[in-house]
Amino acid sequence: MGEVLILIGCPQIPVQSPLVLYIADFLQDAGHHPVVAANPSAKQLVKTSDPKSHYVSEYKDVEKAIGELADGTVQYPLIISLIHNDAGLTYTATTSAVAPKSLLISVLFGEHAYDLAEEIEYPTEKVVAPVTHNTRPLLIKLDEVLEWAVLKI
Amino acid sequence: MGEVLILIGCPQIPVQSPLVLYIADFLQDAGHHPVVAANPSAKQLVKTSDPKSHYVSEYKDVEKAIGELADGTVQYPLIISLIHNDAGLTYTATTSAVAPKSLLISVLFGEHAYDLAEEIEYPTEKVVAPVTHNTRPLLIKLDEVLEWAVLKI
Repeated sequence: MGEVLILIGCPQIPVQSPLVLYIADFLQDAGHHPVVAANPSAKQLVKTSDPKSHYVSEYKDVEKAIGELADGTVQYPLIISLIHNDAGLTYTATTSAVAPKSLLISVLFGEHAYDLAEEIEYPTEKVVAPVTHNTRPLLIKLDEVLEWAVLKI
Repeated sequence: MGEVLILIGCPQIPVQSPLVLYIADFLQDAGHHPVVAANPSAKQLVKTSDPKSHYVSEYKDVEKAIGELADGTVQYPLIISLIHNDAGLTYTATTSAVAPKSLLISVLFGEHAYDLAEEIEYPTEKVVAPVTHNTRPLLIKLDEVLEWAVLKI
């Protein structure tokens, strides 16, 4: 039982909000409390999808969340970062640097998923599928990694 | 108390799945049962967003739904169609033709929302906002029309 951070970036890709809710549901089923760190527009899109907060009840500003990790105010045993562009890589690399004890999963999607995955130099488990609106190839890989991760934390 | 059909098209635009869940939640609060008619990939995206079926518990294939309306097997007092391209306009126009007694709301979004809205020749209430991932401008207009519609049916 603990909090798990889901980090998300700009909401250009249709699969992102669905993935956030899917991961949050998985975590809740596993007895963990999901916290979504997002910029205002990405947060608004997830909230629109989940108006009754069945899946996500706690949101943080992404800069604030990284700041709290850096100053040690908050720790998360598991951080799941959704990445579909260079900005996503950058904040995930920063997160890795300030939270070296957290288990970090990088979920890479969108048309540049494989290229982005190759650029990663921080320690992380990767889930990669170049999808933009078909979640299926990503969900199969994600389930496997999430099942392993929740047993490990 | 009755079934309301939510018609959706291809899931290229990030706001679509969130809008479906938001509308479904609104309808449930108003005592109606939402039925989502979608193609397989659009359905999969909504299902990924709502793995426990808190918001949507019934899905239909979009062609099958239009077929049922055409042969009179099923009737809906209210049909809400989400449109972001010409294909969306086409199936909504067909729906209007086969279900002339239903109250039809056309929700137009994406960068061509206003152009698409001007092309509409079937009788419908329109909700138009040229948004792709910021739902806010659309939700304000949508709330107003949905409140009026659920009182009318």
